[in-house]
Amino acid sequence: MTVPSSPVSTAIIGAGIAGLTAGKMLGDYGIPYTCFESSDRIGGNWAFGNPNGHSSAYRSLHIDTSKYRLSFQDFPIPEHYPDFPHHSQIKAYLDDYADAFDLLDNIEFGNGVVHAEHHDGGGWTLRTQDGTARDFDFLVVANGHHWDPRYPEFPGEFTGQTLHSHHYIDLFDPIDMRDARILVVGIGNSAADIAVEVSSRALRNTVYLSTRTGSWIVPKYMAGKPVDKYGGALPFVPRRVFRTLVNNFAEFLAGNPEQWGLPKPPHRFLDAHGTQSVELPLRLGSGDVIPKPNVERLDGSTVHFADGTEAEIDVIVYATGYNISFPFFDPAFLSAPDNRIRLYKRIFAPGMPDLAFSGFAQSVPTLFPFVECQAKVIAAYAAGEYRPPSEAAMEETITADEQLYLGHVLDRPRHTQQVEFYHYERQMRVEELPLGRERAQVEGPALHAGSRV
Amino acid sequence: MTVPSSPVSTAIIGAGIAGLTAGKMLGDYGIPYTCFESSDRIGGNWAFGNPNGHSSAYRSLHIDTSKYRLSFQDFPIPEHYPDFPHHSQIKAYLDDYADAFDLLDNIEFGNGVVHAEHHDGGGWTLRTQDGTARDFDFLVVANGHHWDPRYPEFPGEFTGQTLHSHHYIDLFDPIDMRDARILVVGIGNSAADIAVEVSSRALRNTVYLSTRTGSWIVPKYMAGKPVDKYGGALPFVPRRVFRTLVNNFAEFLAGNPEQWGLPKPPHRFLDAHGTQSVELPLRLGSGDVIPKPNVERLDGSTVHFADGTEAEIDVIVYATGYNISFPFFDPAFLSAPDNRIRLYKRIFAPGMPDLAFSGFAQSVPTLFPFVECQAKVIAAYAAGEYRPPSEAAMEETITADEQLYLGHVLDRPRHTQQVEFYHYERQMRVEELPLGRERAQVEGPALHAGSRV
Repeated sequence: MTVPSSPVSTAIIGAGIAGLTAGKMLGDYGIPYTCFESSDRIGGNWAFGNPNGHSSAYRSLHIDTSKYRLSFQDFPIPEHYPDFPHHSQIKAYLDDYADAFDLLDNIEFGNGVVHAEHHDGGGWTLRTQDGTARDFDFLVVANGHHWDPRYPEFPGEFTGQTLHSHHYIDLFDPIDMRDARILVVGIGNSAADIAVEVSSRALRNTVYLSTRTGSWIVPKYMAGKPVDKYGGALPFVPRRVFRTLVNNFAEFLAGNPEQWGLPKPPHRFLDAHGTQSVELPLRLGSGDVIPKPNVERLDGSTVHFADGTEAEIDVIVYATGYNISFPFFDPAFLSAPDNRIRLYKRIFAPGMPDLAFSGFAQSVPTLFPFVECQAKVIAAYAAGEYRPPSEAAMEETITADEQLYLGHVLDRPRHTQQVEFYHYERQMRVEELPLGRERAQVEGPALHAGSRV
Repeated sequence: MTVPSSPVSTAIIGAGIAGLTAGKMLGDYGIPYTCFESSDRIGGNWAFGNPNGHSSAYRSLHIDTSKYRLSFQDFPIPEHYPDFPHHSQIKAYLDDYADAFDLLDNIEFGNGVVHAEHHDGGGWTLRTQDGTARDFDFLVVANGHHWDPRYPEFPGEFTGQTLHSHHYIDLFDPIDMRDARILVVGIGNSAADIAVEVSSRALRNTVYLSTRTGSWIVPKYMAGKPVDKYGGALPFVPRRVFRTLVNNFAEFLAGNPEQWGLPKPPHRFLDAHGTQSVELPLRLGSGDVIPKPNVERLDGSTVHFADGTEAEIDVIVYATGYNISFPFFDPAFLSAPDNRIRLYKRIFAPGMPDLAFSGFAQSVPTLFPFVECQAKVIAAYAAGEYRPPSEAAMEETITADEQLYLGHVLDRPRHTQQVEFYHYERQMRVEELPLGRERAQVEGPALHAGSRV
């Protein structure tokens, strides 16, 4: 059994919610780290208008998680916040978080990691925007997965304007969305929000929504309470019982999307990240948003759909999601084709003890305490207080977890990272961290300062 | 027993839904009539941009009644219509209705009634816009009650811009509603719709909603079905049982408005016309609409509220309802102070056998088949097929009906006309029309051609 003689030197890529919480937890253990941030500010996706181009927030965006589920455990969200805070309030909350734990001192702004070179014997050389190269023992990748727009591949050519939801700011920016024929492609939250925003009849637009798969449309309030407040009792109810009850009741309350002209969801209510929208069913039911199946082909200003119908379109908004991208890794070294990357507990790549990931999950119903939970594991790992199991055991668990969380959902890039937060958090807290602590005590930490594995 | 020798000559004031259905039913009995319409088109309130100024429709308006409840019995609404049609679709439906029953031939457009003079012995002389005067036996008043804006009386003076919801067209017309501090006053559907429309963060407005009383916020969909579809079974369930069940369940599902900062509703769910809005709770819960109590006083650009708070405001939108106005009657002859007018079955003014009203009700959940039902009574009356009871009996019933429909609601101009459609329609069909037919057979019709009562 080995105790680390000196703390491992750690680098974090990105100062969004995942990087910030990782930094905070490393600080709790007294582990030195440097956070490399390409922008001039923290917040990543939640820094509206982020000059590094990595924010997908539009002007009207409110988080789809209620403040009750959003709050970090270590830093309660202000009580006076509304149920569903605006992005500007989330940013202010993150600023306060960074202040409260003195996180800014460890962040190098405007100095993102350009290239991360892994040494054969372990450890890293990072080349950053300022042209310097520095060595670290441990690398935490927290560069987010909502900044590299994913586009569908439709045959043919479209001659109108196109826009990915990533670049949508508001009705006037970057495209004037009035008196226009608009096609929104997708059925995620961005698709729903943008379709709703541009389809107000006050704007004189004609708005189509094209989706190849269905999705349950989840309201934000149910019986006057934020829907995600109902999940509170979840860890104490057997998962199977809970899922059956919720599936039946929620599908009844949400209503069948087919009645609004959307495809039948290919999964049960809880099985895939639903689309959270209060207004979309109303807009569909009011004829303001016209549902369409998948796009079959593009031809000038005409869009042909899979059901044989067509429409003249001025603007296509691709709300078709994001790629998981690691531009600082050589693709041959590590990449996530079709957003697939096998990570133990969505953190550790088997066989790479000096590498950890944070925030690479679609955590339902909440992401903020999820990255906080991952940060706890990562910091305990860097401190030698946690050790994951053997490579073979990790691989086995990854496959089992994929079956658990993804076995019932569609095989699509959108769903590759789905995790149930309550189940995950409880499992990490009650089982994994204590077991990993035992392993670290018995086998010694997996990570060492100056270690070349 | 007298049978009318020649049909009574009838005049209808207004070619909105009430005037159109009255004309259609009179035509069914072969009774000649002239409909006087001040505008160049039919539709009244549903003719968006009506040049006579009597439409309150804004560009984005959808009816709050689902097509299932909206449909006239005699003229089913097109199946392809969305659940909640746009105003342009309602107008098209009314145009089709007028065409189908050849109603246009009997309408004098651009020739509204300027003055209606009642003869002491019965009958009318109508002076119209073209300067002529004509005599009629029977007058049907169908000039609507959503065109004469009602304003609250707040002490002090406001130096910003003001607007009644009646004049609101869209975000840009007649006032540019961007980058502005906006106060919406009221808690009816117009207040909710306008507050929602102007409060999108994309517009950079700050939006307050001031209301002195609370209201239940009713969604348009419940479990995926238009809420008003659930009322179908109503006539077959005892009223008291139904009301208790619905009140409890609906109040649970709607959620307590107090949680969003609105006042507690002073009545049970079914007891007063609720506010139908899917989006308002979300906007309140997202901090986009800031709830305020009643306005206490105005002072320049500052608005002081009853709770001692104040706000700087650029635009006040008064969504404070409408007056019932009969500009063609001498006020001493007939008026509706504070929207109060005692009408038997909301149709007949006791002691005035040559006068009928149509459409002067807040009929919940639907107005269209309600005016159709009133039109049937009015036409049967004009044809001598229906006779209301004695003046004394009418007065008694008016008081009893007020107790039935209004006994439990707040004593406010907004609620003076409330009627439960299903209860009303069934009562008219099953009891009142057969009884009135008997009365007409026994006592003779109350109305005669050339009659001077």
